Amino acid sequence: MYHVDLNSDLGESFGAYTIGLDKEVIAQISSANVACGYHAGDPLVMAETARLCREAGVAIGAHPGFPDLMGFGRRNMACSPKEVKAYMSYQLGALYAFAKAAGLKLQHVKPHGALYNMAAKDAALARAIAEAVAEFDDKLILLGLANSFLLTEAEAVGLRTASEVFADRAYQADGSLVPRSKEGAVIHDKQLAIARTVRMVKEGKVTAITGEEVPLRADSICVHGDNPSAVEFVREIRKTLTEEGVQVEALGNFIQ
Amino acid sequence: MYHVDLNSDLGESFGAYTIGLDKEVIAQISSANVACGYHAGDPLVMAETARLCREAGVAIGAHPGFPDLMGFGRRNMACSPKEVKAYMSYQLGALYAFAKAAGLKLQHVKPHGALYNMAAKDAALARAIAEAVAEFDDKLILLGLANSFLLTEAEAVGLRTASEVFADRAYQADGSLVPRSKEGAVIHDKQLAIARTVRMVKEGKVTAITGEEVPLRADSICVHGDNPSAVEFVREIRKTLTEEGVQVEALGNFIQ
Amino acid sequence: MYHVDLNSDLGESFGAYTIGLDKEVIAQISSANVACGYHAGDPLVMAETARLCREAGVAIGAHPGFPDLMGFGRRNMACSPKEVKAYMSYQLGALYAFAKAAGLKLQHVKPHGALYNMAAKDAALARAIAEAVAEFDDKLILLGLANSFLLTEAEAVGLRTASEVFADRAYQADGSLVPRSKEGAVIHDKQLAIARTVRMVKEGKVTAITGEEVPLRADSICVHGDNPSAVEFVREIRKTLTEEGVQVEALGNFIQ
Amino acid sequence: MYHVDLNSDLGESFGAYTIGLDKEVIAQISSANVACGYHAGDPLVMAETARLCREAGVAIGAHPGFPDLMGFGRRNMACSPKEVKAYMSYQLGALYAFAKAAGLKLQHVKPHGALYNMAAKDAALARAIAEAVAEFDDKLILLGLANSFLLTEAEAVGLRTASEVFADRAYQADGSLVPRSKEGAVIHDKQLAIARTVRMVKEGKVTAITGEEVPLRADSICVHGDNPSAVEFVREIRKTLTEEGVQVEALGNFIQ
Repeated sequence: MYHVDLNSDLGESFGAYTIGLDKEVIAQISSANVACGYHAGDPLVMAETARLCREAGVAIGAHPGFPDLMGFGRRNMACSPKEVKAYMSYQLGALYAFAKAAGLKLQHVKPHGALYNMAAKDAALARAIAEAVAEFDDKLILLGLANSFLLTEAEAVGLRTASEVFADRAYQADGSLVPRSKEGAVIHDKQLAIARTVRMVKEGKVTAITGEEVPLRADSICVHGDNPSAVEFVREIRKTLTEEGVQVEALGNFIQ
Repeated sequence: MYHVDLNSDLGESFGAYTIGLDKEVIAQISSANVACGYHAGDPLVMAETARLCREAGVAIGAHPGFPDLMGFGRRNMACSPKEVKAYMSYQLGALYAFAKAAGLKLQHVKPHGALYNMAAKDAALARAIAEAVAEFDDKLILLGLANSFLLTEAEAVGLRTASEVFADRAYQADGSLVPRSKEGAVIHDKQLAIARTVRMVKEGKVTAITGEEVPLRADSICVHGDNPSAVEFVREIRKTLTEEGVQVEALGNFIQ
Repeated sequence: MYHVDLNSDLGESFGAYTIGLDKEVIAQISSANVACGYHAGDPLVMAETARLCREAGVAIGAHPGFPDLMGFGRRNMACSPKEVKAYMSYQLGALYAFAKAAGLKLQHVKPHGALYNMAAKDAALARAIAEAVAEFDDKLILLGLANSFLLTEAEAVGLRTASEVFADRAYQADGSLVPRSKEGAVIHDKQLAIARTVRMVKEGKVTAITGEEVPLRADSICVHGDNPSAVEFVREIRKTLTEEGVQVEALGNFIQ
Repeated sequence: MYHVDLNSDLGESFGAYTIGLDKEVIAQISSANVACGYHAGDPLVMAETARLCREAGVAIGAHPGFPDLMGFGRRNMACSPKEVKAYMSYQLGALYAFAKAAGLKLQHVKPHGALYNMAAKDAALARAIAEAVAEFDDKLILLGLANSFLLTEAEAVGLRTASEVFADRAYQADGSLVPRSKEGAVIHDKQLAIARTVRMVKEGKVTAITGEEVPLRADSICVHGDNPSAVEFVREIRKTLTEEGVQVEALGNFIQ
């Protein structure tokens, strides 16, 4: 029996601004990464998103980012590990309050955008993130890029981890993602993307852009609800996974 | 045996900006109201202030305010009760994370500035605040203006409350504060202020600006650490209270 | 020959967040009120909106608001006249830079949301706004609610003014808008709204909700580009005005 | 006859937070770099600082930074040249409004903190800054680090430039500053710092940390008003410069 989690970033609306088809995509996923007010989201949105998660029976996790609303948390910022740790604690606590009010417990934490990408390659940042999570609640699962410092540092402090893969991204021979700036980084053929995903889940392997077979742990697949066709893709990927005998369920159900 | 709490607003520094003599005043108080990043404070300051509280053995509480850093939370904002409730939850959760990391539990919540003043007179806002606190942790004490909606609404949702009095402020016959815009609102004679405070604590009475005797519950006295003379005043008030047989201790020790 | 201006709020997107069909509605209007980064808008959006205005041949004006991005500038804030004046100067200057870079001169200023509503009824705030505009550039036109302090205070400091009317709002006998909280405040019958607008422009009169004939100067009509049907309504109103012999053109062409 | 400008960062206070002895240091300098609300400063502070400049007869310039109030603009942010250009325009325009209200013209622009440091070494960022300045007002002087891209890119777009030196910093053989992380980066001996400064101004040379003689254009010396001893140091440096026959005056008086 195979298991995999489908995760998506939710609760990214802010004030008068709406972004993402949260109500559509939540029906297809098993774990929601909820923005915490630094790069996206606001308290009303967080309260509403926590309620949505409860109604949909979807596990809730924190999606903390850099304090950069104008850049949506996508721009690298030279924050120190000490600053990053404090920003993590702040956002974890904030989301915890809304999860609690909705009758939910936080399941996981997945850093957002530039923070995710920087920490994947920077052990000190990854450690700061892991320490903030462990101090807050050592039962939380850290969801991070496969084969990255996010996972190794989280394990080093005793956290459970979940390894995230991307259906529509090409991989390098060392297991890292092909940078978006390079040709072939994004896989546009949806059937190919789905087939690769099924193989990552069932065989723990992906074919690198240079042809090598790369081992890869696929605990969770990142999916998107930006627009109707993205949501449709999530439906397809979920349907195929199910047909292939893969159980789609929340991380907390199967991560040891 | 008489008891009273001395509370002060701490952790109001932000980024490169330092405000308040936190390290001096904390030695004189029993409860700290810690800013939560909306009107003042930032994650590094919150982490440091929580550590200060633990070292000093001072009880920690949340001091949430309006999202108005530029106005230090002192300007009335027409936020709806629903918005206020969500802003409260957000800030309570954020501070909880730093208290937890420092090995502390939150003792109380005291709204800041314009939020405190508006809710004191607006039952719907006060109820929204009380509900946010009760949903987050129904063991928390709500610290609010004596004789105000902050206390009655908190009691209505089942919270313990602490009634706050001001050493240097004149009172009206109905138990409310004389507005700062009116003559005589602030009591500049320090010895008179201290004598009035002792009487509020021991007799539960204060003489109104119009001469009437006003009943008043004095669980906590608001003191300030803005400058050396303010800290010196706190030392004097504490010394006199002790000499008068009043035990200065944290709210959690004596509020039922 | 009759003249009227059609104005709309543009440039309200922020960072990753898009709001408003700016490219559609700009083809139908003569003046754009551009958000200045306090309640909406950011520097990239302001630069892009100024370019849009130049391409469309639409006059550009500043649309300053309260520093409340989370509330979209729609919540009353108790800012002092001195604070409001400084916030106006800041935002006027910021937009001026983008207008200049696009080869445009600012034509007008229209306060946004809660600032507009508060100043309409508060002479001191209206005066602070007028003074900021006059100090920045005394050739600017202040666009404000018909029969409000925004216009009288602007005239008092020597500014040209433009009186704004709303196609879809009911008026009271004293010339003020029926508050949105009251029944009948919004006119949902589009043909009636258009007919009322034509009459306001050509006859300078509107029928109050209580039946009286109210004199009203209609220099500019506020229209919206929030969604496709709003844009369609703007097309209709413009078409009817033209058929009725009313020239739709920018304020600067006809305001003395 | 020798000339040099003394510049200092002013107007960095924000809301309830005061930083810097602006009123003391302004009496000793010839040019003020005024924060523009992104990394420091707010509209009230900007208005007050512009008035201070006029009263003191000190030239006013813009000191724009990254949108990072929590980090005081000192943290590198991976903003694109397009973003940086727009942030520059926004802040230049904002300060222009307050200078105008105070009856002053902007003299110069000096980027702040991380933006200054990044652009010094990154030609594309430096070009974006230079273009924003030139589009806003091609009579402005760009004040930047000696021997850096800030100066060469500004010259490339036709701006006048002023080369800034630091009294208390060591230089490398290539004319760049010794990074603060390295030993010997800061010169603590005040008399040595002053002597080096006089030589930079009069001879256009400084001795590198490795002993070489390095040519350096010293149009302006960066000084600080953070605390009383910093202000005292400015007094001494100005006194010595005057005794050595160097005229301290604003950049606009002597930069061609």
